Amino acid sequence: MDKSKKITQRTEDFSEWYQDIIEEAGLAEHSVVRGSMVIKPYGYAIWENIQKELDSRFKDLGVENAYFPLFIPESFLKKEAEHVEGFSPELAVVTIAGGKPLAENLVVRPTSETIIYDTFKNWVSSHRDLPLLINQWANVVRWEMRPRMFLRTTEFLWQEGHTAHATAEEADEFSLKILELYKNFTEEFMAIPVIEGIKSESEKFAGAYKTYTIETIAQDGKAIQYATSHNLGQNFAKAFNIKFSNKNSQEEFVHQTSWGLSTRSIGALIMSHSDDNGLVLPPKIAPIQVVIIPFVGGNKELAERVNAKCQEIKSRLDQTGLLRVKIDNSDKNFGEKNYYWEKRGVPLRIEVGPKDIDKNSFIVSRRDLLQKQEVSEDTLVEFCVSMMTEIQLFLFHQAQNRVAKQVVKAENYEEFKKLLEEGNAVYAFWDGDPKVEERIKEETKATIRCLPFKKQNEVGNSLLTNKDGSRMCLFAKSY
Amino acid sequence: MDKSKKITQRTEDFSEWYQDIIEEAGLAEHSVVRGSMVIKPYGYAIWENIQKELDSRFKDLGVENAYFPLFIPESFLKKEAEHVEGFSPELAVVTIAGGKPLAENLVVRPTSETIIYDTFKNWVSSHRDLPLLINQWANVVRWEMRPRMFLRTTEFLWQEGHTAHATAEEADEFSLKILELYKNFTEEFMAIPVIEGIKSESEKFAGAYKTYTIETIAQDGKAIQYATSHNLGQNFAKAFNIKFSNKNSQEEFVHQTSWGLSTRSIGALIMSHSDDNGLVLPPKIAPIQVVIIPFVGGNKELAERVNAKCQEIKSRLDQTGLLRVKIDNSDKNFGEKNYYWEKRGVPLRIEVGPKDIDKNSFIVSRRDLLQKQEVSEDTLVEFCVSMMTEIQLFLFHQAQNRVAKQVVKAENYEEFKKLLEEGNAVYAFWDGDPKVEERIKEETKATIRCLPFKKQNEVGNSLLTNKDGSRMCLFAKSY
Repeated sequence: MDKSKKITQRTEDFSEWYQDIIEEAGLAEHSVVRGSMVIKPYGYAIWENIQKELDSRFKDLGVENAYFPLFIPESFLKKEAEHVEGFSPELAVVTIAGGKPLAENLVVRPTSETIIYDTFKNWVSSHRDLPLLINQWANVVRWEMRPRMFLRTTEFLWQEGHTAHATAEEADEFSLKILELYKNFTEEFMAIPVIEGIKSESEKFAGAYKTYTIETIAQDGKAIQYATSHNLGQNFAKAFNIKFSNKNSQEEFVHQTSWGLSTRSIGALIMSHSDDNGLVLPPKIAPIQVVIIPFVGGNKELAERVNAKCQEIKSRLDQTGLLRVKIDNSDKNFGEKNYYWEKRGVPLRIEVGPKDIDKNSFIVSRRDLLQKQEVSEDTLVEFCVSMMTEIQLFLFHQAQNRVAKQVVKAENYEEFKKLLEEGNAVYAFWDGDPKVEERIKEETKATIRCLPFKKQNEVGNSLLTNKDGSRMCLFAKSY
Repeated sequence: MDKSKKITQRTEDFSEWYQDIIEEAGLAEHSVVRGSMVIKPYGYAIWENIQKELDSRFKDLGVENAYFPLFIPESFLKKEAEHVEGFSPELAVVTIAGGKPLAENLVVRPTSETIIYDTFKNWVSSHRDLPLLINQWANVVRWEMRPRMFLRTTEFLWQEGHTAHATAEEADEFSLKILELYKNFTEEFMAIPVIEGIKSESEKFAGAYKTYTIETIAQDGKAIQYATSHNLGQNFAKAFNIKFSNKNSQEEFVHQTSWGLSTRSIGALIMSHSDDNGLVLPPKIAPIQVVIIPFVGGNKELAERVNAKCQEIKSRLDQTGLLRVKIDNSDKNFGEKNYYWEKRGVPLRIEVGPKDIDKNSFIVSRRDLLQKQEVSEDTLVEFCVSMMTEIQLFLFHQAQNRVAKQVVKAENYEEFKKLLEEGNAVYAFWDGDPKVEERIKEETKATIRCLPFKKQNEVGNSLLTNKDGSRMCLFAKSY
């Protein structure tokens, strides 16, 4: 049986491979509404794990959750000029409600700065009310011309953090603290290495003073903007009149940040670790970490013995409190079950048959390495627990090594174009001129993903203009 | 100082009192979009506790979470005739998206039966795919003519469960299992007694075969529909063509259920337990269960001693793993802090001052009874832990006793009207005729909240028609 016959090979068509993984692993499917998707239980369970971990990290920083309206009066968006310009083309607009045309149209939130800050102005009056640290878990809508499941959908799920601070320094510090949180979460939990930095003027969030980003690199060399943290300066504070009286009783506008991570992170997850056999999940994010697959013949007595042993193993693994374990009792045959859970990226599969029970040892398959190994019953629990750490680290290091090879420095524009064509992301110097950035984008489809923090001391001659003292940027095609 | 000067007394104006509680406890506030609200951090923390507990109970039944689109094509709603008739007046409609008029208008989901069942038809083909047990945590929109915070808002948060089964019996059994889950959750966790039963034909969900409900009674005698569970029969299965091949390889339509509990449960919570001093929270739902309030004078050395003791007490309480504890280190004065946490309904407040430390005992205030008591340091942890159970049970029994007095049986229509006017909910017989139901509603504003399960064997002479053998119903005005 050709196990992966349903999954397109990566080398054949990366885009098709990505779609196949989503379908075969049961993560999501297209909805009847163009650009929207249905997140299926297995995909949603991954999102729940992301939520749980991120939420706990936010709360450790003193951030509180709240909920603000889905609908935003059209006039609100217009209060910040760059903001409305950036989002206008993507809006879904409610014009009829309760059977009547609305006096003022309502926009379905594409992001919630305006509706939230109209509330913040009533929550802040004194320096004692600051910092104000709020997060919201919500759905948002941006009309999408080129939809792709998880990565670009008309509706998506995310968290959006919104804060207000007394000083410019505190706001900048906080937006960087959140970027650090996103980076640590992504590397430790999703096992995806990131490149952190600041966006160029043309790529920053509509209405922001500065946008910080973490970018990940997919297996095809394209970049994915994984999460962003914006220092909004006083732009929105002035538009929405959010003032406080400082320690000297003088009125000042607050300094703000906003930051978000969405279901697109699941797209980046797929594109980082998965292989031609299906999804590969780092243990920390896997809804099921160990699946126990009974090998049962037709003999009823043997079947009872096998099922009892499966239960026993599950109990022992559950008792550690460290593992999410499932027994596959479905009526699929043994081979189908193995294939099913392999495609779904479960880190470990344990096969339990009568012969294994007699030998007091079981065959355990590692999803990451596609390797099987015999593990004695005595050491099985210990093995599974330690394997969670090992697989997590292996996937991270594998991705690090891959990215290290994919991101290559270009000395000149010819080399730059060649490296891009070969499927790389490229480090190169840029003189800061938006026209140069625009021309590179037109000619190569690559954009500046960020000016990486780790490269901020490297300067050289710019692409196209050859101007010296130029900053090093990460250029890539992107999703 | 008149501690409750900002909160209207219940006897004076119940509606104003309700609004004042929400404002003073910092639960929510009106939004600029008519009928919408902002759920503030303290209110949202209550919703998070509801979510966590319910979600775990659903998962124990084998229900899986998923996520379906916010937007529903207008034509979908029309596929089930009663469904579209019921929801049409309440719809918010997107007519413009991505800068262009849409070819087909999109409705913002008022509930998701149609969009979900259009997907279910692809998820079900064999009896092996059944039962299909899905839940979604989501926001929904119903344009509201008489908004009231939490109880009726244009947008609200809820969970909606959707299932498909092979037989009519299984579907009915499952919808009743969920009703039982809702009842247990509400009584055990929210400490609110419920009356469970079935809706009359005119009050059932648009498109349902049967609607089961749990109703709670507010302190003013009005009923609140707390949660509902619908047996949808095959209505939607036929409209959306959800078929499976049964064990005999014959095609059949599935039998379905849907069920929901929303943020209106927080409105019922407020109206059940709170008093003229503010919010009262059962410990299981309280975001903060114990607040420690330092009593600090100007003396710096004493202040350090008090703060160290507060930390020590918090550590000891935290170590139990059973309590959510906060120290109020804000710069409010001692009286303000006490008032602040009383209004917010925290079950226990511990006062810590230099004299208490010297005496090795602390004054602990119970929010439910508005009583203070001295507790020795040795027994403080034990006291707090056991008090959580005691307060939880006290509030439930207090509400049970209240409701027992509020719900009174009427022997005839005159008595019925009098009891309603006196602020009661009323048990009375009804012959099943929708015209009689309608006339009672017109004349008294009371509706049939349900035909209670516990009264299903009680029969008698109907209101208005005097027809014998009529079923006993719960009549009440409602929110």
